[in-house]
Amino acid sequence: MKLQVALDTLTLDECVHLLEEIREDTDIAEVGTPFIIEEGMRPVRELKKRFPELEILADAKIMDAGEYEAEKCFSAGADIVTVLGAANDATIEGVVRAAKRYGKKVMADMIEVSDLEKRAGEIDGLGVDYICVHTAWDVQNTGKNPLDDLITVNKVLKKAKSAVAGGVKLSTAEPIAKEHPSVVVVGGGIIQAQNRKETAGKIKEILRREVSCE
Amino acid sequence: MKLQVALDTLTLDECVHLLEEIREDTDIAEVGTPFIIEEGMRPVRELKKRFPELEILADAKIMDAGEYEAEKCFSAGADIVTVLGAANDATIEGVVRAAKRYGKKVMADMIEVSDLEKRAGEIDGLGVDYICVHTAWDVQNTGKNPLDDLITVNKVLKKAKSAVAGGVKLSTAEPIAKEHPSVVVVGGGIIQAQNRKETAGKIKEILRREVSCE
Repeated sequence: MKLQVALDTLTLDECVHLLEEIREDTDIAEVGTPFIIEEGMRPVRELKKRFPELEILADAKIMDAGEYEAEKCFSAGADIVTVLGAANDATIEGVVRAAKRYGKKVMADMIEVSDLEKRAGEIDGLGVDYICVHTAWDVQNTGKNPLDDLITVNKVLKKAKSAVAGGVKLSTAEPIAKEHPSVVVVGGGIIQAQNRKETAGKIKEILRREVSCE
Repeated sequence: MKLQVALDTLTLDECVHLLEEIREDTDIAEVGTPFIIEEGMRPVRELKKRFPELEILADAKIMDAGEYEAEKCFSAGADIVTVLGAANDATIEGVVRAAKRYGKKVMADMIEVSDLEKRAGEIDGLGVDYICVHTAWDVQNTGKNPLDDLITVNKVLKKAKSAVAGGVKLSTAEPIAKEHPSVVVVGGGIIQAQNRKETAGKIKEILRREVSCE
């Protein structure tokens, strides 16, 4: 079970500093959407160079021109690129084609998909590596969390692995880990923690423990 | 009726060169999504500086963290920012809040929204300036085009103005202009034309003519 750390609100220097602190517990470093909006592929290139042992995910949330936009991310060094589950099948297939050409991976982000079970089943057949349930940041203050969605998606998937994002933190990691997603995404839960290294370590320990029970 | 030129596949130098050629017929210069993925806000800053008389649209296709992501675009100099119609209302409201703070505008991109009529009506009440029907690039080869969608949306809107995107070119501009959208987006239809200046001029002339018939 991999720990993906979402880097959304930090400068590149702050990201490098954080990853140096928590690299031993981090599997995937996510260059978040706001980071891409601000800086483009520069942080992807830079983090891949500095942390070659980590997988770098470009959270481009692709919605159109799948092959063309994914190509930009993979050629910059991304190991995983996100496409929206709300995108047209043709767009998702384009992202998958680009990934295959680079020997890299695709994560479909199911944020705001209305019929999650149906759409997860459809996308599972399109060749993506991960299907990520995701409670939007903008609705996390309503108490919504991605656990129920994870359970829904896990029942459907036959080929893709599940991932989970949206407000996951140390106190909510255990029930999520017990559903055995392949990737757990944590952003603010680590970045805003008093002790980031210790928090990342504890979350990773929960993920390790659950995998060993399988 | 404004002509928005979508800059998706060019380098920044090529964009500057093109805009110098067609500036007199261009109202809005769109920094396209792949351009943002590659370069972040650099082209927004640069184009605003070089072409202060044009409106600059950042096609960020925001899907989450609406206020936070829109703020990045507006603070870089964007006059208009796009949010996905598929996003949660809370996200669209966040983008609108940021726009109001900067005295700038929001365009909701209805790409891949399934119930267009219903969703356009909902978003019309959220304070966006434009609602843009948009045939995804990835499905334009199926013959789909945005004219029918424009007619649908025009029947619903009470506050927002309509915009139209997705494969519009000189040969299809006239029937679209006859539906009186406020913004017509053209990308490849100008960029790939033999004579870009002449083509932009002819398209703008069609838009001018239709407005004058209102």
